[in-house]
Amino acid sequence: KINADRLWDSLMEMARIGATEKGGVCRLALTDLDRQARDLFVKWCREAGCSIRIDKMGNVFARRPGKDDSLAPVMTGSHIDSQPTGGKFDGAYGVLCGLEVIRTLNDLKYETLRPIEAAIWTNEEGSRFAPAMVASGVFAGVFDLDYGLSRADQEGKTMGDELKRIGYYGDDEVGGRPVHAFFEAHIEQGPILEAEKKTIGIVQGAQGQRWFEVTFTGQEAHAGPTPMKVRKDALVGAAQVIAAINQIGHDNQPFACATVGMINSSPNSRNVIPGKVFFTIDLRHPDDEVLSKMAAEAKAACDAAVAKNRLEMDFKEIWYSPPVKFDASCVAAVKKGTEELGFDNLDIISGAGHDACYMNRVAPTAMVFIPCEGGISHNEIENATKEDCGAGCDVLLRAMVERANA
Amino acid sequence: KINADRLWDSLMEMARIGATEKGGVCRLALTDLDRQARDLFVKWCREAGCSIRIDKMGNVFARRPGKDDSLAPVMTGSHIDSQPTGGKFDGAYGVLCGLEVIRTLNDLKYETLRPIEAAIWTNEEGSRFAPAMVASGVFAGVFDLDYGLSRADQEGKTMGDELKRIGYYGDDEVGGRPVHAFFEAHIEQGPILEAEKKTIGIVQGAQGQRWFEVTFTGQEAHAGPTPMKVRKDALVGAAQVIAAINQIGHDNQPFACATVGMINSSPNSRNVIPGKVFFTIDLRHPDDEVLSKMAAEAKAACDAAVAKNRLEMDFKEIWYSPPVKFDASCVAAVKKGTEELGFDNLDIISGAGHDACYMNRVAPTAMVFIPCEGGISHNEIENATKEDCGAGCDVLLRAMVERANA
Ligand SMILES: NC(=O)NCCC(=O)O
Ligand SMILES: NC(=O)NCCC(=O)O
Repeated sequence: KINADRLWDSLMEMARIGATEKGGVCRLALTDLDRQARDLFVKWCREAGCSIRIDKMGNVFARRPGKDDSLAPVMTGSHIDSQPTGGKFDGAYGVLCGLEVIRTLNDLKYETLRPIEAAIWTNEEGSRFAPAMVASGVFAGVFDLDYGLSRADQEGKTMGDELKRIGYYGDDEVGGRPVHAFFEAHIEQGPILEAEKKTIGIVQGAQGQRWFEVTFTGQEAHAGPTPMKVRKDALVGAAQVIAAINQIGHDNQPFACATVGMINSSPNSRNVIPGKVFFTIDLRHPDDEVLSKMAAEAKAACDAAVAKNRLEMDFKEIWYSPPVKFDASCVAAVKKGTEELGFDNLDIISGAGHDACYMNRVAPTAMVFIPCEGGISHNEIENATKEDCGAGCDVLLRAMVERANA
Repeated sequence: KINADRLWDSLMEMARIGATEKGGVCRLALTDLDRQARDLFVKWCREAGCSIRIDKMGNVFARRPGKDDSLAPVMTGSHIDSQPTGGKFDGAYGVLCGLEVIRTLNDLKYETLRPIEAAIWTNEEGSRFAPAMVASGVFAGVFDLDYGLSRADQEGKTMGDELKRIGYYGDDEVGGRPVHAFFEAHIEQGPILEAEKKTIGIVQGAQGQRWFEVTFTGQEAHAGPTPMKVRKDALVGAAQVIAAINQIGHDNQPFACATVGMINSSPNSRNVIPGKVFFTIDLRHPDDEVLSKMAAEAKAACDAAVAKNRLEMDFKEIWYSPPVKFDASCVAAVKKGTEELGFDNLDIISGAGHDACYMNRVAPTAMVFIPCEGGISHNEIENATKEDCGAGCDVLLRAMVERANA
């Protein structure tokens, strides 16, 4: 059994890096705070006897040798970047579960046949740099390295430059090596486990996602003397789309989610008709066909707003992450561990994307979910209990050991 | 007659301060660029033999003595601050017309009975610091000095601190002295004069304005695992209001204008349901009763969005500028000058607020409008012809001289 207090203490210590006043974390990818969090993880892993390797996407791998170190490792991991107003658990929980598994095996002086690795994946959130899960995506061959390194933030700084700046542009090639199995522990980030009073979610897969970037261009003009009927108001157009996107979410129940999370209006002055508006669209559904239909509806809503307000449009799909079905034997290993430990559990589909979604393409993969308070994530008030954190880590330990000895 | 070439050259030289790539001007109130523009005006006025006085709101008065210098002056003026993506003419034209009137009187060695003053009013645009026309408002006793100096920009910097920083916090008390008459020359900023092929607009008054600041607070949550029906999406609420405000503008024709010019969404991350959105509302109508009705409709739209999306709201009216009717005798002086010079003209109501609107409360006031290309203002492509600029300044000269000798 893992040490739930030690895991909790590590989580709380990690959460100090980028701590916000409201009890959350702001630790955007590849900032100085991200570096501090990486440094702390690396230090802890070295103290636990691990060797550390870093690849060109800044992914960090802490390795505990196996009896036969030439065999492919069983890997776990998640991310330590956060949303601008993120929580203490999203990502960091999975990373520190990896460390806790290694610490527990050390305590027990338990030797696995295969090596065990605990990973940090760079920029999972997709907040500072879009899209999400970029670096596990490069590892899995979904994106090429150039694409990964050239992702830029709103100021135009690239992941490549920022990796070099914080000293985490590593020597290793990204991916291209066998991974025997991959597991990721994570808070659910939704309300289901809590509502159903279950401790563990046996994650079967993840819904598909499509991300879009839209820019509407109208014409700036004075808000006073410019008659309504001659206006080309880019923000009115965007507002019509935002309302329509929300409606698309409601219209495609069950399961659909549709969100405009980001909007930048220019010149953003009270008495100027907005001339240019940039906004993003995030569409999700577990069924790829429905997801495609939602995308068509979103495009139609944009076209309608453009026509109605006489705007110009730049419409780009910047990310498509198809629905994911995890590996049956890895899912079974999670289920087996959960039932051996006697935890109430539920089969569940992830609403969020995770690095495991991309790892699933190159290694048999599964995930362990634990509940979070009120189902709230991507929020400073995100919370989970010490008991549930411990439970998820215990399940992870069993699943990994089973696989590492197979 | 004034020297239209000289006026144009001064306009073009002033437009270099804060010039943008697209041919416009970005010279926000009380920035270093605003200081440079003020310095240039002061230098030119000193060269024209004027004395300079500056008041505690940073209003600058260049004075050409009259035969009887104890009499109240005839004043003209406008502003040299601009929108973030503003034009070369909005404001600067009226300020430099004042200088050109003084230069012309000097050329002609013409002595008026009363002194002539050309003014720069601080922060007319209301873009960096809301509301608009703050400093002429303090001069006219509409706002008290503390209110004026404590207006803050989005970073929290106050007008008082910024005036001190750029060296334009003057010694003079603000207002409280007699002004015999006030005239302001300005581009129309709307499409009417151009469409009607008129050179001069005889401005009868200005429509009323109401400005609001609204903050919607919902709950940040993950865009993926958070079901549509439990969301509290502040941006969806704001979008419904933006569409409704636009509809209020269309529903209250003729004359109504309704604009959301500014929106800031937080945390502004693609995969986070927006938890907080700030936006502004600008409502205008020449009839005060219709304007009040529009305000009630705007409030109702906000209430409906709050209820529908389960949000909290902070709703503030931050500015009310009632419809203005200019002084009949000053309007007649503008009309007389226009007709003596033989310019095609039109009676017109200003769609924008101007410092003249507040000066009208403490001195008989009128305005002279000239056409601008396509009716476009608050835009970098704002344009006016040298001929029209000259024509407006000639009308101003006649109106001012008539009043200064009365
Ligand atoms: N787990 C998580 O928050 N991932 C970010 C990518 C997404 O928005 O699904
Ligand atoms: N003239 C002008 O642009 N004034 C700014 C105040 C307003 O928006 O009416």
